[in-house]
Amino acid sequence: MSEPSTTRVTSEERLARVALNALAEPGDPRLTRLAASMGAVEVHDRLLRDVDLAGLRSETAERLADLHPERILEAADRQGIRFVVPGDEEWPETLADLDHVEPLNRLAGTALGLWVKGPADLSETCASSVAVVGSRSATSYGAGVAGDLAAHAASQGAAVVSGAAFGIDQAAHRGALGGGGPTIAVLACGVDRAYPTAHRSLLEHIAVEGAVVSELRPGCSPTRVRFLSRNRLIAALTRGTVVVEAAVRSGALNTASWAQRLNRVLMGVPGPVTSAPSEGVHELVRTGAALLVTRGEHVLEAVSVAGSHLTETPRAPENERDLLSLDDARVLEAVPLFSPAPVASLARTAGTSVRQSREALARLAAQGWVVQEGLGWRRAPESLEGQMRGGGPADS
Amino acid sequence: MSEPSTTRVTSEERLARVALNALAEPGDPRLTRLAASMGAVEVHDRLLRDVDLAGLRSETAERLADLHPERILEAADRQGIRFVVPGDEEWPETLADLDHVEPLNRLAGTALGLWVKGPADLSETCASSVAVVGSRSATSYGAGVAGDLAAHAASQGAAVVSGAAFGIDQAAHRGALGGGGPTIAVLACGVDRAYPTAHRSLLEHIAVEGAVVSELRPGCSPTRVRFLSRNRLIAALTRGTVVVEAAVRSGALNTASWAQRLNRVLMGVPGPVTSAPSEGVHELVRTGAALLVTRGEHVLEAVSVAGSHLTETPRAPENERDLLSLDDARVLEAVPLFSPAPVASLARTAGTSVRQSREALARLAAQGWVVQEGLGWRRAPESLEGQMRGGGPADS
Repeated sequence: MSEPSTTRVTSEERLARVALNALAEPGDPRLTRLAASMGAVEVHDRLLRDVDLAGLRSETAERLADLHPERILEAADRQGIRFVVPGDEEWPETLADLDHVEPLNRLAGTALGLWVKGPADLSETCASSVAVVGSRSATSYGAGVAGDLAAHAASQGAAVVSGAAFGIDQAAHRGALGGGGPTIAVLACGVDRAYPTAHRSLLEHIAVEGAVVSELRPGCSPTRVRFLSRNRLIAALTRGTVVVEAAVRSGALNTASWAQRLNRVLMGVPGPVTSAPSEGVHELVRTGAALLVTRGEHVLEAVSVAGSHLTETPRAPENERDLLSLDDARVLEAVPLFSPAPVASLARTAGTSVRQSREALARLAAQGWVVQEGLGWRRAPESLEGQMRGGGPADS
Repeated sequence: MSEPSTTRVTSEERLARVALNALAEPGDPRLTRLAASMGAVEVHDRLLRDVDLAGLRSETAERLADLHPERILEAADRQGIRFVVPGDEEWPETLADLDHVEPLNRLAGTALGLWVKGPADLSETCASSVAVVGSRSATSYGAGVAGDLAAHAASQGAAVVSGAAFGIDQAAHRGALGGGGPTIAVLACGVDRAYPTAHRSLLEHIAVEGAVVSELRPGCSPTRVRFLSRNRLIAALTRGTVVVEAAVRSGALNTASWAQRLNRVLMGVPGPVTSAPSEGVHELVRTGAALLVTRGEHVLEAVSVAGSHLTETPRAPENERDLLSLDDARVLEAVPLFSPAPVASLARTAGTSVRQSREALARLAAQGWVVQEGLGWRRAPESLEGQMRGGGPADS
């Protein structure tokens, strides 16, 4: 059995965590709290000595006797799966935030350990990462946007974390892989399983390019509760969560709740108000829970260390006409585009005196806005492009 | 010439306002400030006596001599157009807010008066009103949503105010008319003019059902500056402004700026992030300037007196399974939908002891979740509908 080279974790500690992790469901607050307060080795020892901690012993006695943590670890190792625990250099410290939040769906607490398959160093990868999650029944619009956001994040070195489900998750992983960056799939079953089965090759690809991660030991099947505890890890592993399409009762909104609870940045991508899969996202934004994002830059700006990714506000080119005085702008407005008009007529249209219009026209001519032609004035041809760009009088 | 029956405005005052209004462009801050500080009659008198207030006399001398306010008023009256001024019962007091904000595009200040055509009482109608504005080059999605929001507002008695332009404005007016409520078109030209020409019959309809309003006296043409000063009125007349589709440099964003400046509620309707006409709206929401709204209820809630229109948060029906204990939920999860399974097998799947599973099954059976069949357990048929609604294990 291979030990990570950089760790301050004893074999005893690691094995105790394998055992405890196998005893209870992920996110069982009794176990995570006990382990956090008295240490995994102590909890494991007491349970073996038949001490009934928080009712765990009576529930787990049968399984505890049958558990062989060394064998679990060795079997995993043969499949290229490692068990990362607190104290390993690869352990993502941000998970500890889970020990300081209220339970959700009766789940809480840091994972006792994470089963990992793939070359990505978890701690390093998650230090700059974003979760992209959403509806399994995504629209092609949602999947397209999720893929684009993920590709942008990945191309800028931010890992994309998601749950490998159909729809948005899949699009996010694919986008990240396409963007040439790392991506992490967090599963609600063992990392040796492909769930959904249709994503077997996607998961294999992720295990080669990034990492497939789970709290559940190899061989475990997904259950509803496990999806919920998995969601807390997706939120906790990342600096922020982007929700792309989520109907009102959606698993993605559960991940969103964890992100909020953990003080992570929560972001939502809008869509047509007529699209049910966008309804949950709109509600998050409307109630102020989520920041609205529409582009990869927005996401990176939100999850990055302040100032490292600044979004440029979209802005039309400066309209030079905005720089004219109100009087000159009014006279310019009255000058015909093509057929010259005399000053008196311009003054009437502009609502100024003839003298004023004459003075304004002189200034406008000096700046290249108008030209005199015979007895009248018309717009200078070279000024018309700007005029068109800036919008004509009908630009309400 | 007909005088409004309920007014404390003298003929002299009204005529002075007709004259001053005809002298300068709407929103000229010099004139609006002078009128606010020394009164319209005094300003008019001084200009007639050749006193050069803020440079106005030298600009307006020629026109001042030619002005016949009585004739303007009489001609308007013959066309069914009235001139509403501060002091008339119909004058919307909210316009006074314009005297207390910084100029935008060098425009500011309350209107000197409003030319109105149509049966709607301005003050009464605007007391409960919302502006619905947006891009002239709207998509069919945007126009549809604008129409729906306007119809909902109108059906609930809130007047819809807009600018009668192509696209969103048109859809908003039509929606309001369809919703059976009042709608007000605020123009950048005289209310006797149809701009755009294609909206002649729409404007006639509005003048019959609601009101067509302008700061500009009958006969005036629209200009770029007049569109900008018109926008300040749309924002000031209403309790809030909804922007539906607005590209980055759009007139609707100018109205939005006025709404912000005036401390009105600013709202934005999201759309696909891939749609350029939604970009300006998303930016308003993203930067926190606008509240995201997706339904008519949201709009009414935002513009109504606190609590009079409360939106029900969309929520899936309460999932009864959420009420189960974690242990029972875990066991229920393991129970097959159709083919019965023995307790030992369920306990293994659920990760509990056999005793625990047996106890949980008893509780679940008592609540109608599961039934015993032979030596095994399966889901009670009547519980499956809820199961489906609440989402299966794959509901990540």
